[in-house]
Formats: sequence, structure tokens, C-alpha cells
Amino acid sequence: MYRTHNCGELRISDLGKQVTLSGWVQKSRDKGFLVWVDLRDRYGISQLIFDEERTSKDILKNAKSLGREFVIQITGEVIERSSKNSNIKTGEIEILVSNLTVLNESKVPPFTIEENTDGGDELRMQYRYLDIRRDSLKKNLVLRHKVSQEVRNYLSSRDFIEVETPYLIKSTPEGARDFVVPSRMNEGEFYALPQSPQTFKQLLMIGGLDKYFQIVKCFRDEDLRADRQPEFTQIDCEMSFVNQENILNTFEGLTKHLIKSVKNIDILNFPRITYDEAMEKYGCDKPDIRFGMEFGNLNNVAKHTDFNVFNNSEEIIGIAVPGGSSFTRKEIDKYIEWVKRPQIGASGMIYAKYNDDNTFKSSVDKFFNQVDLAKWGEITGAKKGDIIFVLSGEKNKVRAQLSALRLHVAENLGLRNPNEFAPLWVTDFPLLEWDEDSNKYHAMHHPFTSPKLDQLELLKTNPGEVKANAYDLVLNGNEIGGGSIRIHDKKIQALMLKHLGFSEKDAIEQFGFLMNAFEYGAPPHGGIAFGLDRLVAILGGQESIRDFIAFPKNNSGRDVMINSPSKLDDEQLNELNLKIGS
Amino acid sequence: MYRTHNCGELRISDLGKQVTLSGWVQKSRDKGFLVWVDLRDRYGISQLIFDEERTSKDILKNAKSLGREFVIQITGEVIERSSKNSNIKTGEIEILVSNLTVLNESKVPPFTIEENTDGGDELRMQYRYLDIRRDSLKKNLVLRHKVSQEVRNYLSSRDFIEVETPYLIKSTPEGARDFVVPSRMNEGEFYALPQSPQTFKQLLMIGGLDKYFQIVKCFRDEDLRADRQPEFTQIDCEMSFVNQENILNTFEGLTKHLIKSVKNIDILNFPRITYDEAMEKYGCDKPDIRFGMEFGNLNNVAKHTDFNVFNNSEEIIGIAVPGGSSFTRKEIDKYIEWVKRPQIGASGMIYAKYNDDNTFKSSVDKFFNQVDLAKWGEITGAKKGDIIFVLSGEKNKVRAQLSALRLHVAENLGLRNPNEFAPLWVTDFPLLEWDEDSNKYHAMHHPFTSPKLDQLELLKTNPGEVKANAYDLVLNGNEIGGGSIRIHDKKIQALMLKHLGFSEKDAIEQFGFLMNAFEYGAPPHGGIAFGLDRLVAILGGQESIRDFIAFPKNNSGRDVMINSPSKLDDEQLNELNLKIGS
Repeated sequence: MYRTHNCGELRISDLGKQVTLSGWVQKSRDKGFLVWVDLRDRYGISQLIFDEERTSKDILKNAKSLGREFVIQITGEVIERSSKNSNIKTGEIEILVSNLTVLNESKVPPFTIEENTDGGDELRMQYRYLDIRRDSLKKNLVLRHKVSQEVRNYLSSRDFIEVETPYLIKSTPEGARDFVVPSRMNEGEFYALPQSPQTFKQLLMIGGLDKYFQIVKCFRDEDLRADRQPEFTQIDCEMSFVNQENILNTFEGLTKHLIKSVKNIDILNFPRITYDEAMEKYGCDKPDIRFGMEFGNLNNVAKHTDFNVFNNSEEIIGIAVPGGSSFTRKEIDKYIEWVKRPQIGASGMIYAKYNDDNTFKSSVDKFFNQVDLAKWGEITGAKKGDIIFVLSGEKNKVRAQLSALRLHVAENLGLRNPNEFAPLWVTDFPLLEWDEDSNKYHAMHHPFTSPKLDQLELLKTNPGEVKANAYDLVLNGNEIGGGSIRIHDKKIQALMLKHLGFSEKDAIEQFGFLMNAFEYGAPPHGGIAFGLDRLVAILGGQESIRDFIAFPKNNSGRDVMINSPSKLDDEQLNELNLKIGS
Repeated sequence: MYRTHNCGELRISDLGKQVTLSGWVQKSRDKGFLVWVDLRDRYGISQLIFDEERTSKDILKNAKSLGREFVIQITGEVIERSSKNSNIKTGEIEILVSNLTVLNESKVPPFTIEENTDGGDELRMQYRYLDIRRDSLKKNLVLRHKVSQEVRNYLSSRDFIEVETPYLIKSTPEGARDFVVPSRMNEGEFYALPQSPQTFKQLLMIGGLDKYFQIVKCFRDEDLRADRQPEFTQIDCEMSFVNQENILNTFEGLTKHLIKSVKNIDILNFPRITYDEAMEKYGCDKPDIRFGMEFGNLNNVAKHTDFNVFNNSEEIIGIAVPGGSSFTRKEIDKYIEWVKRPQIGASGMIYAKYNDDNTFKSSVDKFFNQVDLAKWGEITGAKKGDIIFVLSGEKNKVRAQLSALRLHVAENLGLRNPNEFAPLWVTDFPLLEWDEDSNKYHAMHHPFTSPKLDQLELLKTNPGEVKANAYDLVLNGNEIGGGSIRIHDKKIQALMLKHLGFSEKDAIEQFGFLMNAFEYGAPPHGGIAFGLDRLVAILGGQESIRDFIAFPKNNSGRDVMINSPSKLDDEQLNELNLKIGS
């Protein structure tokens, strides 16, 4: 037996016990006549003591030769520490070692296995198995496990069943790019890896399973942006005989449960706003509502003077930055520079300080008097001591710019507290969005999303105006879930595909199986999918997903640890009847 | 709201309630003045009643037009049935319908949605979503969910954490064939889909995660035999600082828990035998021990006469078939024909009846007297009333033949009771097996399995004799799990790969990342993987896995429902820089 206890469980109440522990040498301190070793495993750290008086010569000598990350097994007696450490749970005791076995040696690791490691990103990715030994990464993976378990137990207790859908499915060139898998047994043909189990979960509803979920890997062959992974994990859910309200309530319950069980925080408010409202108030469809700074539309109060920048703008919007009247000229200039960077693309920024003496001081005092500026203050909800930042220009651009500025300012002011959780439903998304490149409409959510049924006529005349029964769940400014009520009628599905530019032939070839299924008693149904990687990262108080995935890929889609992807040998290519080169 | 209750929950205690139900029309009976409809959902069936007196004319008319599998919503009052049905939970009540909405119509389904459907296998696969509506398939999927949940909860409560390992990994041509995935971003290079997360779970142990599990899809591009699937699900587990005994105990606990929680059966006995014993006693490494008929080796008691068939045989083995002395000549001939079929390949079979009067009557009375035959009886453990079946020939062939016969006889005699569960550990598997085709040793388990450490020398002189710290879990004659203690030492791993015929270069290229990891403090570790598909099938009392998978593929690896795999369009191939043809 390798151990009687783990390295995190011994306490003062265990004094006098003979114990056996196994683990890694975190560090050792050699005082000559005395050696202390911190022994680490997943559960904690226990201090070992070897000394001239009480330890045999051989063992003391061996103890002195232990290097960092050596794997050892010891037996010894639990004794009381003379100098206690209240920072760790085992800090009142140490083990007086009577037996020491080196189970495996270790080279000096390429970076320190500590909270603040000296390893750079690339090195840590290459030696991921060492990085995982670090407490913070280990905690992230344990958190991920806990969240997954809580999801499963919550949904299972509410009659959902987890069903595994296939990974080797069919390629549909619409949407994002598929990863494909050549079939050796069906020459010249390919499977595709699922971008999501969307059609299968709908078929399960048609199959009468009523309530489905699955924590499942999905795959998208996209040009990777920072913090995107080619494989990612979804909590995929679908329900039959439900309307949007039923779904929102169910998954509001799940979200509250997760935040409670993982963070011990009760979510009291679970607000909802429509997509149009969100764009109006926050300039984006995933607003962070942990703080205010809602948009104030100044179109009606800022176009009456000779200030042509405003007069020539489609949209003039301001936000009131709390406490910003104390910003120095330099600080303000920094914000102006920030919005003028090409990534944001504003041509400039106007501001107005709302002073404590009830006066306003703006960068456009030449054009706007105190009465004008007071109106800005009223519309943006500014209080004394705030500063109003104003951007103007083309509507969609201004919204996006000011939304980015709003988050940037909040970040600087410490208003994005990672230990605060502010979920929000955004509803009534547009059904379609116009794509300039392909010169046609794309499904904003996906092609199976139901339009608002009272807007079916509008679909013919003004498709861009049609709203969908689609909703996103936003948490702290991140979209963590999205879903919709689905089409369950073959005719409406055919109409939808037609509006998306599918020929009848293509529609049948790609989605015929689903549309046929609609003809055999498809129930009304809808669902949602959560991005697990992001959800866990946010619950872990971080925005980057990479450290919540055991073995992530880098931005070129490579696993640098195992060096993959890699070349195949010719025999494999021959068997697959494939040739490299186009 | 689509429903106030589901179709399985209303009882006599609900009399008088106004309820709304939604579901599928299972069947309807039209008596002219009276229509009964069985409304079905996942949870059960509720009977609806429409009649001339109490139902409005329009609704009655609509009720008459309902076809099978129409999706409807009704509102009505719960009333007591005049003729009760004690076979279903809702059998005491029916719903007097006051409102009927057709939510979706249905074509006449291509087969009946009933326990004994009239649909053939192909048709049911093509309309899998209709097949899933059948009670037996639905129950299988619910059982699968329950088993998965029980596994997760059991292991989680014992400090295991579920970690997701990547699906896009690296191809290793050794072992079974990989499915590969071309990488668009890394031209000419491929990922592979995992045959199992073996190396990753070992890296997690090196990473200090201590106890890992994952319910995970695995992929093998094999020529499909009946009841094999290209994608299948494993319960994959690994533990650090354990010996074989720790692992067997842990997963014995899990298996007992599953059988108890799913079948409410307590497993009292969990026997263990070595691989050598299993081959000796049952002629195979996954014996069904729900019944006896253990092999009796007759080499020492059947080679002393002129019966040359035996004299020229390497091995003579018999089994005592309980009650078989009453077999007719015709029945016995049928068994002889059975073993002579090419699939079994025996040249003939000898038998000896052990009569109730204590005499023996054999097919070789000319050569063996009563004393000889009594010895056969003793060695095979025959009782009065049994028949002894004896096969002879080359050792490995005879064992396989008699093993097959043993199962066949047991099947015929009703000794393979699907509601009885008899697990068995088979331990001490050989490390290597000789492969005639490639003229080299293959790893019997996989290349990471640890040899018995006291046999390391033997590895140099007689590798075929070396035993491994490897074990299988057998349930009712099926291998449901297998695992081993792993190598955690770089030198031993290199030695192992050398014995498997890897050049040093290939070993480093394919497994270098793992062997490097061994140098940074790899702990002793080991694990096991269960085949979830098979485990669930056996717990469901069946041997075929297909009906325990929501969307299985056929024997050519095709999904006939979605018609996959399929051709890619040229643009996709170009983007991947691939050409069909070799």
C-alpha cells in the first residue's frame, strides 16, 4: 500500500499515529542537522522532518539528496510542529520520518511548480503535465468537474436524460467550417465532426425523449482567434412541449443552482431585456450589467448648434462615468487615444464634466451651454462628480465603439468584480442578419430557429425585421448560452431554408432527414446550449478559457505537447485513398 | 403552457381535476358515439375519452380524424374509468376531453410504434427517431443515462474527478487503425481521433490529479464485425499510488454499486482467477460463470488404449453437461454437427452418459471400460444423469472449441439467465502475444502495461512467458472492462517498446512526450476502462449493443438515417489541400 493518508488530511488530532504518505517533493530545507521536506499531492501539503537525533543516518542522507518533484513514499509518526503554520490545513503537525523510499526521480523541472511560476506560456503548454501540478490549474480542473457534476445532477433530478449523440456525422458546408474524417470503408466519402448536436437533439425530441441534455465536445475549423479552441465543450439541452418562458425558467434555475453550489452566492435578480433594448442601452447583445453607464441617446439635444461633428452624425450617444469629473486632462486624453486606436476606430471623443458645484465643463463649451449640458447629464443619468463621454457617427459603429469604451472604463475603475455574478437574458434576437460578403441573409442563430409566428408574413416582405424566438444567456458580459424555440413544421423549415439561399435540392440533400422527420409527429420543442469552457472560466473568476481545459491547443490549433497535428505515413494515406495536394 | 401533467402521472386521487396533456396518439378506437384515444409521451399513456353526450360535436369530429402519431394537446377532466386496466399506472382514470388541438399531424409511420414492431432492422435504422419512440428503446436509453449517472456519482464521491481529454490528437499507426482528421491550418498534417485517452490519462497522473475518470467516446477504424461500432463509449479511469489490489477493490465496489442501483441485486461473490486458470478451466479469458461445466483434462486417463484419435491429440478435454444423459441420439448428433461446423472446426465429438444406475454408456465403449469412464466422470465432476462431452486435438483449438460448445449448451439448457449477474476478475494476463502475420510480439493489453517486475529478466530470454499486471472484468461471459498497472519508468517503457519492435526513432516520435514526462516525477499508477455500450446492454439483459446507442451505425459504418459518410464538395477538398485517389 502506497499510503494510509493523503497529504492534505492529517491534523493535530492524529498526533502519535504511524502514517504512510506518498507524493512529490515541493521543496526541502537542509539545515545540516535537520531536513524539512514539503510533500505535496492533489489534496495538500504535509511537512516531513528528518533530524540527526531521531532519524537514521542513511535516511537523513537520502533526504538530503531529494530533488524538487521527486516522487517519494515515507512512513513516520505524526508529531506536533514547534512552529505552526496557520495558512495550511496541516500546519499544526509534521511527520517524523522513519522510512523513505524514492518511487521515481525527477529532472529539474523547466519551470517552478508554484502559484507564480517562472514558466512562459509556450513552455507551460509544452510541459502541460507539470503545469497541471500547479495549484491554480489543478483547482480549475476540479472546478470544471464540480460544475459538470452539478449540471448533471440538477438536470437529471428534473427528468432530463443525457443521451450521447454521434461524433461521426455528416458535413454541411453551411455555417462554420467542419472538421472532416475520411471514411476508409466508404471510399471517397467523409464524415464530419459535429459543430453541435443540433439536428440530433431535435430528432431525439421527435423521438419522444421529452427532456434531453448532454455535456459534449463540439468542433469548428475556424481561423483561431485568441481564446478560441477548435474543440470545445457544450452543455447541450432540449425540451419538448415548451414555450420560451418554460425554457428560460428552467435554465435560470440551473444557473442559479450553479452559482449557489460553486460560489455560494444567491442570485436574486435575473433580468431580461430584448435584443433591441440591449443594443439601445449598451450597444451590444451581451452587456455586462454588474455596473451602470447605460447609453444616453443625445440625438435630440445635441444637434441644434453649429457643432458639425454632431450635426453630421447619425447617432450621438453618451455614458456617465461615475466619479470621472476628477479625471486629469492626461487621463482623459488617454481615453481619447484609446477610442481612436484602429481596433476601436472612433475619430474623437467629446466629454463633459459634471462638477460638484452643479456646473458642467465640456470639451465643446464653445457650442453647448450649461442648459444643453444639463440635458446630457439628465439623459445619461450623470450625477455630480461624473464625467460624460460622448461618441458620434454611424449608428452601429458608435454603439460598438461606446460599448467597448464602457467595458474599458469599467475595467479601469474596478467595476468588473470577478466575484460578482450578474446574469441576464437577452431575448427576441433578429431571425436573420445580412451578410455583406455573400450578399445574402444568414441565420443569426441557426437555420432551425423559429421566427415569431405572427411575423411569418413579414418574412416575405422585410426579412431583416423578423424577430426569432431566440435568446442568449449573458453572464458578466459574456455570452455563456444561447438557444431558441425550433421550427417543427416542414413547410416553415423549407421557407426558412429558402430565405437562407438554399436551393430545394441542397435543402433536401443536407437537411432532408430532419424535414422528413417533421412529417411524423414532431412536437413543439426548443432548447439551449451553454459554452462550458467559458462558463467555468467565469465561475473561476477569469475570462480566458485556456487554463480551464486540461490539454488546450495553441492559436494555430496545435498541441505542442504531443506535437499534433502531424504527417501520416504513406500507407495510411493509401488506405484512405487520399493524396496531399490540390 | 402545453401541459399541466405528463401522460404517466394521473391517478385516481386526481379525480375531478382539470388537466392539460400533450403527446402522441398511440391508438384510437372509434365506436361511433364514443372515441377513445391512448395518448402517449415518455412517461406513460393516458386514455382520453370523447363521447356524444359530453363532448362537443366539433371536438368529437376532430377526435375521429386523428391518425396514429399525431401530436395533440387536450384539456379535460380526470374521471374514473368504467373498465379499469391494472396493467398501466394510469389505468384507473381517463380524461374526458373538452378541448383538442392538433399540434402536428403525422404521416402513417413506416412501422408500428409498439413493443413488437413490424419494422425490419434497416427500416428502423432509417427512421431511428420513430424507433426511439418504442418503449423498449426508450427504456434502454434511460437505463444508459442512469448507469452513466451512477458511475459519475459513485466515482465523484470517492474523490475521482472527471477530466475531458482532447479528441483531436495524434495518429499512432501501432494498434488498431486511427480515424484521422486533416488539418486545414497545418497543411498536409492530420489529427487522429483517440482510440482511447490512454496516454492523456497517464499524463494526468503525472500531473498529480491522483484519481481521474471520464465517460468518453473512442474511435477505431476497424472492419466492422457484427455488433461493433466505429465510435464507442468508455468509462475510462486511472489512479495514482495504487497497486493492483487497490484498483480491483475500487472497481469491484463500482460494479457492485451499479448492479445494486440498477437491478437491485446484491453481488455477494466477486471471484478472481488468473488468465492461465481461466484458459485451463473454461478455455477462454472471459468465462461465463453463471453455470458450471468446467473443463476436465483427460490427458492422463484417456491415452492408454488403442483409441488413436485421443492418442494423437495434444489435449483431451471434457465437460459434464447437467441432465444430459437424457439427451436423445438425435439431440446428441445435433451437438456433434454443431461442433463440426467450420466456425467451430472440431473433427468430431466423443460422449459418455452417466446413467442413473451408476453405469456409463459412451460412444467409445469399444476402447474404454467402466473404470476408465468413471475416471472421466470424476475429473469432469459429472453427476448421475449428466452427459460428458469430450473434444480432443491441438490444445488451443480444443479449448476454443469446447468453450464455444459450453456456452452453446448452456444457452440451450437455459443456464444463461439474463437476470443473474456473475462478475469475475481475470488477472495475470500475458504481457505479449505472438502475432503470426507480422512475425513479432504485440502487446496483449497495450504498450504501457507494466510487466510483473520480478519477471523483467525473463523478458529478455522468454518474452512470451512474461505476465503483466493486467486484469479484465468479465460479466456473464463478456469482457466489460480491462486495465493494468502502467509502466512509470522511462527505461522500462523503452525496453517494452523495443520488444514490440519499435525502433528508437519511432518510439521517440510516437511516444516521446510520454517517456519524457516519465522523467519529471511520474508516480506509480494504473487504471481500467469499461465498455459502456456493452455494460449497459448486459444490465439491460441483452447481448447486442446496438439498441443501447441512440444513433448507431450499420455494419458498413454508415448512418443510414442521415446518409453519412458522404461526398465533400470540391471547395472543401481544396481548402484541405486533399485529393481523392491514390
